[in-house]
Amino acid sequence: MIHPTAIISSKAKLGRDVSVGPFTVIHDDVFIGDGTSIGGHCEIGHPTALAQGAPLIIGNKSLIRSHSIFYQGSTFGEGLVTGHRVTAREKTNAGINFQIGTSTEIQGDATIGDHVRFQSNIFVGKNTKIGNFVWVLPYVVLTNDPTPPSNLLLGCVIEDYASISAAATVLPGVVVGAHALVAAHACVTKDVPTRMFVAGVPARIIGPAKNIQLRDGSGRSAYPWTLNFTRGYPESIIQEWRAEHGNQNT
Amino acid sequence: MIHPTAIISSKAKLGRDVSVGPFTVIHDDVFIGDGTSIGGHCEIGHPTALAQGAPLIIGNKSLIRSHSIFYQGSTFGEGLVTGHRVTAREKTNAGINFQIGTSTEIQGDATIGDHVRFQSNIFVGKNTKIGNFVWVLPYVVLTNDPTPPSNLLLGCVIEDYASISAAATVLPGVVVGAHALVAAHACVTKDVPTRMFVAGVPARIIGPAKNIQLRDGSGRSAYPWTLNFTRGYPESIIQEWRAEHGNQNT
Amino acid sequence: MIHPTAIISSKAKLGRDVSVGPFTVIHDDVFIGDGTSIGGHCEIGHPTALAQGAPLIIGNKSLIRSHSIFYQGSTFGEGLVTGHRVTAREKTNAGINFQIGTSTEIQGDATIGDHVRFQSNIFVGKNTKIGNFVWVLPYVVLTNDPTPPSNLLLGCVIEDYASISAAATVLPGVVVGAHALVAAHACVTKDVPTRMFVAGVPARIIGPAKNIQLRDGSGRSAYPWTLNFTRGYPESIIQEWRAEHGNQNT
Repeated sequence: MIHPTAIISSKAKLGRDVSVGPFTVIHDDVFIGDGTSIGGHCEIGHPTALAQGAPLIIGNKSLIRSHSIFYQGSTFGEGLVTGHRVTAREKTNAGINFQIGTSTEIQGDATIGDHVRFQSNIFVGKNTKIGNFVWVLPYVVLTNDPTPPSNLLLGCVIEDYASISAAATVLPGVVVGAHALVAAHACVTKDVPTRMFVAGVPARIIGPAKNIQLRDGSGRSAYPWTLNFTRGYPESIIQEWRAEHGNQNT
Repeated sequence: MIHPTAIISSKAKLGRDVSVGPFTVIHDDVFIGDGTSIGGHCEIGHPTALAQGAPLIIGNKSLIRSHSIFYQGSTFGEGLVTGHRVTAREKTNAGINFQIGTSTEIQGDATIGDHVRFQSNIFVGKNTKIGNFVWVLPYVVLTNDPTPPSNLLLGCVIEDYASISAAATVLPGVVVGAHALVAAHACVTKDVPTRMFVAGVPARIIGPAKNIQLRDGSGRSAYPWTLNFTRGYPESIIQEWRAEHGNQNT
Repeated sequence: MIHPTAIISSKAKLGRDVSVGPFTVIHDDVFIGDGTSIGGHCEIGHPTALAQGAPLIIGNKSLIRSHSIFYQGSTFGEGLVTGHRVTAREKTNAGINFQIGTSTEIQGDATIGDHVRFQSNIFVGKNTKIGNFVWVLPYVVLTNDPTPPSNLLLGCVIEDYASISAAATVLPGVVVGAHALVAAHACVTKDVPTRMFVAGVPARIIGPAKNIQLRDGSGRSAYPWTLNFTRGYPESIIQEWRAEHGNQNT
């Protein structure tokens, strides 16, 4: 259902079974996939010259919660789910099943893989590259200007399955390796090797992430997290993870 | 006064002398107490299955400022006062005279005592427990996942009269003791004993909070803060504090 | 163009060629300069007794993006440009060409010079003083209460051309000197001398900012940043900077 107070451009293309909440504005050059639901007070397809005429594309079966703002010139795959007051600017290209927490801001010119989880109030500077299955926890800041203010924007690179804990800051151009773990409130000034755990200010390597145990008393390894955590992923992917871990154990 | 552009469900129950601002939406199963004022662009009683049918209850004489979002399934005592763009999700149960600053997010499943002060842009993870008379300053992050991502959510516990300074992060399951003080930008990884002051990354005990002096040149102890700061509390409570401090001084 | 859904008080004074977006509310005692554009879902001139009857004045040729909230009792010079969801409270007096990023909150009672750049999600406590040409990067917290909660609010002072990197916290009453640089995620507990670079928790002096090189491989000094970065400033000012640097080089 399209709420009667919503304002929808005749140049926006809405798929089947799209719902739009009260007081939401949908601008020109917006494509919204089938079965997608958009909350109230949103602004979808905010115009910007920086989009160079490219449309905003939101995949099927997505859910954008209220008060969110999406710019022209970005693409989000099927199954996008957002919290409230999300901001996503131009030239953000994200894969499928992307989740974005309340008040997170993506400044644009960003590449984001499949099945990525951004929690609340994250800052993603321009030129950031995020792999697949990455987790970014609340209040993480992914910076890009090494000598502010400057003309050089070195985006962070967060590789597949990496997890960045709450309130960590990652400095410009830093690469956080696949399956790595960054501790809460760390300040990451150097690249983090694959599968390592870093903590502190500046962040130092503490050891392999696999040495960290679950806090449930089981004594089991908490990492790679795919050993223990599967909620919200497709069954086919969970099966793959099981197969990998099974092989590792033998 | 109910603004003519506000959209109010016929299943919401508004008390006497309730005012609602422009472009605000009030959903089903919302109870708003007498004399409460709700600003514009709010969403009150956001539906969620996680509320399991429980209503949103806002106490008498409350003030919710514009662009705020409150979910179904929570209860706030009399005299709630919020800034703008507050988010409060389901199963948040808060006592009387709760103040919440602009852009603060309470993720739900939280217990909050009486006379609590949350300032701006605080993050309160699920399963957090906050006592009475607690102060939480801007950009504090109260985490809950010890090994992100995991299925275990260990909420923080902040006991009565504790004060958490700006931009501090409290790690999952940490207990900050009554009357304790956490320094700005600290990363609190271990429990903080009652009446102690901690600072740093990771936070270390510096000493009793009472050793910290007011910065007004008086040479007087800044803690317990009830010695010096009484603004906004009921007269009966201020009298109790005075009686306690009088006894301590003899 | 004034959008037909915007609600504009008859006591607000709008200049020529002002545009106002959908669902925006403009209250009494607001003066908006010629050629200024205000996005949708904003609240401009939010009433407050703390403004003591003073109006909100927005200079000519300004751009306030959607979902922003400006209180009565503040003044912004010509060429203000904001992101989305900015909050600016009463008694904020800012000079010309001020830029404010998305989700930044200025708590009021603040003095801000000319050509200042605030990026996203910055917190500016009451009694803050900001010079000219200052840069403040995302998630910086400028605190003011030295012993929270107390009755003493010691605002930070950020002098001309200083640059505060992302996620830094500046403690109450601290003076960051002219042309100084604060590293990302630093916790600044003491005054920072002019032209110095500080980093860490607590922040320590690392050396003169001019010793930091650009990360573009040129081997050139990154500071003073006016050597390298001029985007968005008036040509007359850029010429002055060139003249100064020319003199220094001889």
